[in-house]
Amino acid sequence: MEKVGRYEFLAEPFHCDFAGRLFIGHLGNHMLNAADFHSTDRGFGMKYLQTINRSWVLSRLAIEMEDVPQQYDRFVVETWVESAMRYFTSRNFRVVGLDGHTFGYGRSIWAMIDTESRQPTDIFSIDDGAINQWIEKEKEGPIAKGGRVKMPDEVVHVRSIETYYNDVDINGHINSVKYIEHLLDLWPVDWYREHSLRRLEIAYVAEAHGGDRLDFYRADIGNEATDIEVRKNGGDAVCRARVQFN
Amino acid sequence: MEKVGRYEFLAEPFHCDFAGRLFIGHLGNHMLNAADFHSTDRGFGMKYLQTINRSWVLSRLAIEMEDVPQQYDRFVVETWVESAMRYFTSRNFRVVGLDGHTFGYGRSIWAMIDTESRQPTDIFSIDDGAINQWIEKEKEGPIAKGGRVKMPDEVVHVRSIETYYNDVDINGHINSVKYIEHLLDLWPVDWYREHSLRRLEIAYVAEAHGGDRLDFYRADIGNEATDIEVRKNGGDAVCRARVQFN
Repeated sequence: MEKVGRYEFLAEPFHCDFAGRLFIGHLGNHMLNAADFHSTDRGFGMKYLQTINRSWVLSRLAIEMEDVPQQYDRFVVETWVESAMRYFTSRNFRVVGLDGHTFGYGRSIWAMIDTESRQPTDIFSIDDGAINQWIEKEKEGPIAKGGRVKMPDEVVHVRSIETYYNDVDINGHINSVKYIEHLLDLWPVDWYREHSLRRLEIAYVAEAHGGDRLDFYRADIGNEATDIEVRKNGGDAVCRARVQFN
Repeated sequence: MEKVGRYEFLAEPFHCDFAGRLFIGHLGNHMLNAADFHSTDRGFGMKYLQTINRSWVLSRLAIEMEDVPQQYDRFVVETWVESAMRYFTSRNFRVVGLDGHTFGYGRSIWAMIDTESRQPTDIFSIDDGAINQWIEKEKEGPIAKGGRVKMPDEVVHVRSIETYYNDVDINGHINSVKYIEHLLDLWPVDWYREHSLRRLEIAYVAEAHGGDRLDFYRADIGNEATDIEVRKNGGDAVCRARVQFN
């Protein structure tokens, strides 16, 4: 089995925006699927981990796109493990058309938790460090790593939303992809007539649960980039993101 | 080519609820996909219709489930045209496991519109009534047709939500599946620890657009059934639904 996994997806018509572009949230979901298929095929996927009270938890995700698949496009998400340490592993993605055209890239950082204690656990404890067999050092992940988004003191509260049944994932947390959708929903529909996403990076810093209220705070940092912090129930941050448009 | 189409899907892990059950909204999306694949394979799919300024518009959908696929289950959505008239066609669905086990059924009614005038158009005008070749009269759609949900005078306003970029589909309307999610989100997460959806029927009576506010009104009608009307911007109804749980 190769180190790089390749998984084909379809830009389903109802997963595309008014202009026929695959929604970035659904693209992110396909990256998470590719990560899960790749790790399952190699013995350390979520379904197996559930049987031993472990789970992967997404810590950071960066997506950088030249363009996005259009409705009915078939495309491939390539994914590979760039590095693994005891408590974090780095996984990259390339989104490529069937004609070889690169749409864009992704980078992600994952932790492994004990699903009972919710504490981080040793990734190398799984099958005697099996993940180390799969590290791909040659293939370049050609977008910048996500930096630390540090919010300035001056931020503007821009929206609060409630979370419900459909927002909660199998780990009992607000689904990682839902944050992406909520972040991009901060811009009006008309904004997307003239703009498309260039880069999104998001750091998941704490867990939110169904019923939590999410409060969105925004800081504009120039170069058409915007930093956003999401806090829950008027309290601590659950994630921070930086969004840049073309 | 057979009259009944069969399309295989995966209950993706991030499309499942906290208990590992495929969300009904995602199941509904797979039914819409199956409808589109089936009609595309037979010459009257949305992609072709877009080239002649026509589109299918979902008018009614009923889903009735014995149980739902669990995470990582592969399942098949069968779909076939039950009948076609000048302005409406009826399409059925069966959701079946790879082992032949029936999860449940769906029924739907579709209109065809002119995408410029937004008016209904003659379904039989497409390829000289080609849809008539595909009507499957033998296969039974064994759930009740959706009735007319007539709201009583006494209804309770239970929620209002704003709509954003990610809610808008390729036709420029609020995505049909989003209504299903919003409806089922009216029940708290804990409700779903003890209950699962038995039957959902939904009639789409008018279009809503990104930026519209959706107001949810509820009437309980006994037998664990609830009728819900969704109105936009304090005005007319955009859809009516009846929900029953096990």
